[in-house]
Amino acid sequence: MSRYFSEKYASLVPYVPGEQPKKMRYIKLNTNESPFPPSPLAVELAAKAAENFQLYSDPECRELVGAASELFSVGKDEILFTNGSDEILNFAFMAFCDGNHPAVFPDITYGFYPVFADLNGVPYEAIPLGEDFSIHVEDYVGIHKTIFIANPNAPTGLTISLRDIERIVASNPDNVVVIDEAYVDFGGESAVPLIHKYDNLLVTQTFSKSRSMAGARLGFGIGCKELIADLNAIKYSTNPYNINSATMAAGVGALKDTAYFQKNCAAIAETRAWTTDQLRRLGFRVIDSKANFIFAAAPNYSGQALYLDLKAKGILVRHFETPRLKDFNRITIGSREQMEALVAAIKELLQEQ
Amino acid sequence: MSRYFSEKYASLVPYVPGEQPKKMRYIKLNTNESPFPPSPLAVELAAKAAENFQLYSDPECRELVGAASELFSVGKDEILFTNGSDEILNFAFMAFCDGNHPAVFPDITYGFYPVFADLNGVPYEAIPLGEDFSIHVEDYVGIHKTIFIANPNAPTGLTISLRDIERIVASNPDNVVVIDEAYVDFGGESAVPLIHKYDNLLVTQTFSKSRSMAGARLGFGIGCKELIADLNAIKYSTNPYNINSATMAAGVGALKDTAYFQKNCAAIAETRAWTTDQLRRLGFRVIDSKANFIFAAAPNYSGQALYLDLKAKGILVRHFETPRLKDFNRITIGSREQMEALVAAIKELLQEQ
Repeated sequence: MSRYFSEKYASLVPYVPGEQPKKMRYIKLNTNESPFPPSPLAVELAAKAAENFQLYSDPECRELVGAASELFSVGKDEILFTNGSDEILNFAFMAFCDGNHPAVFPDITYGFYPVFADLNGVPYEAIPLGEDFSIHVEDYVGIHKTIFIANPNAPTGLTISLRDIERIVASNPDNVVVIDEAYVDFGGESAVPLIHKYDNLLVTQTFSKSRSMAGARLGFGIGCKELIADLNAIKYSTNPYNINSATMAAGVGALKDTAYFQKNCAAIAETRAWTTDQLRRLGFRVIDSKANFIFAAAPNYSGQALYLDLKAKGILVRHFETPRLKDFNRITIGSREQMEALVAAIKELLQEQ
Repeated sequence: MSRYFSEKYASLVPYVPGEQPKKMRYIKLNTNESPFPPSPLAVELAAKAAENFQLYSDPECRELVGAASELFSVGKDEILFTNGSDEILNFAFMAFCDGNHPAVFPDITYGFYPVFADLNGVPYEAIPLGEDFSIHVEDYVGIHKTIFIANPNAPTGLTISLRDIERIVASNPDNVVVIDEAYVDFGGESAVPLIHKYDNLLVTQTFSKSRSMAGARLGFGIGCKELIADLNAIKYSTNPYNINSATMAAGVGALKDTAYFQKNCAAIAETRAWTTDQLRRLGFRVIDSKANFIFAAAPNYSGQALYLDLKAKGILVRHFETPRLKDFNRITIGSREQMEALVAAIKELLQEQ
């Protein structure tokens, strides 16, 4: 830290992204990337867009907004695209939280929420999950705070029902409720249709997982037009050209290639079921996941030891060495072949014990 | 604005980007884009990177940092890439300005500085340029504030000397001085070598203009490693994967293709000289520019009228209807053919008067 760094960030603890190894080739099951390449149409349109990189990208993302508003049955003024969904989540912390509107989220969830809160000087409360890692809906009913809930939640993969979300949204009319649906396409139920009923609901999604575009950086939020206008005020005061033209074009391609998207989501769900079953047969505790990852604890094997032993065998998973999570690892659902390699490696490790 | 929007942004006036028309084909001389496509190597590498969009981009931008650190003769820990240079400018306002470190910049300069200041709740002072639009260096010597200077300045194209920059940096040792070199490659003198002498100097540049990559969104900052570490703390608390992998790859290609870059910069400088000469012959007041635009006032023709009349003829320039700028238009230097079309159109308009 330099002596010039503003005091307001003195205690900031930045987010730590998952390992992105460059030297060794791993089976990468640690950052919830898709095992499938992006839609060929997305790649083709991105390459074409790069030929015209000399021109600014459209700050209004008109083509992308047009395609998405049709797909999600929302108005063009009810959607905003951002540089990954991290950006719209940060915008939401900026726009809808402050000293009078503290943030609330589960104690075990996406690790970036407390970082965004600290970055923006927003007081926050982390509400403990139940013993079984479930969200106690009652804890969020009528609490008069700005609520962030990942549904499915990470790193557990557990969901809450649309009925429960509606209870939370309806009972907090003076605050915004943000439902972070980064993983919804793998089996969750989206709250998007509720935005026409509640003006305090913002739903965020990403192209990183189900649309195989983590490296393209594309996320979005859907909410009533007043909320989207607020977020646009932040965007146009931060980085109006926040999305590059190759990503914008790829996004349009990905949205149009519905068949490819659906096939990949179905494959992940099927492989998730297979992997869950295999690990349970080996004595693992595996949380029921609706995401493209599973959260699993090995029998008589610390989470960290398994993480390290798998890494030595060329397989990366994500480990969080915190009290309630340390027995577990978060394992991304890759291709069937990758998961077969994982299960085989785990069998070897269990035998070696 | 919704009733949920935080009061701290109640008076925020977002930046207004230049027009990006979609319906009619204009000769676009309004947003300082390059008339040349990006380097073929940049396009090729971007297209290849898009094929692997399913994987996250490297948050450390190692390849790009490696190429840039060689080119600019700085350490790998003395450079940080961002999603356009707007992002690093915003990071600098966040990191190095607050109630105790107010911001200072010329009253006529990049219109985003006051927006960034307001966004971050930073008090600021805009110091008037001279009658001839020049920066009075004396106004910035020993003022104990965080200083932002675009060099060349916009929309004038005027530069200040490296000696003057050094005076400003050396006389404000308790504050950071940010030199915004968005347009430096067209004839300015870069302050990058000074970063090894002063720990309070941050130099920012962009790939948008001289490297024909406005649509790719790539900017960077160079400073001592402590300043870069501060900016990285902000980045990792905001959006660690802030640059997508296609842009990152294109950036590496653009940095490697030095010959193409130099040829394009030389062509712009030559066409700028030709255009300046032509307009002066027609009686225009044209400020001496070292950027890829000129700032010009027509004889007996209001700036707004000329802007509108040129637009009707299919040529877009940028007009600012403020007291000191309203006689002028900022005209991007396009290709020789585009500038010939501009001069011909202006001749017609002057005759029609």
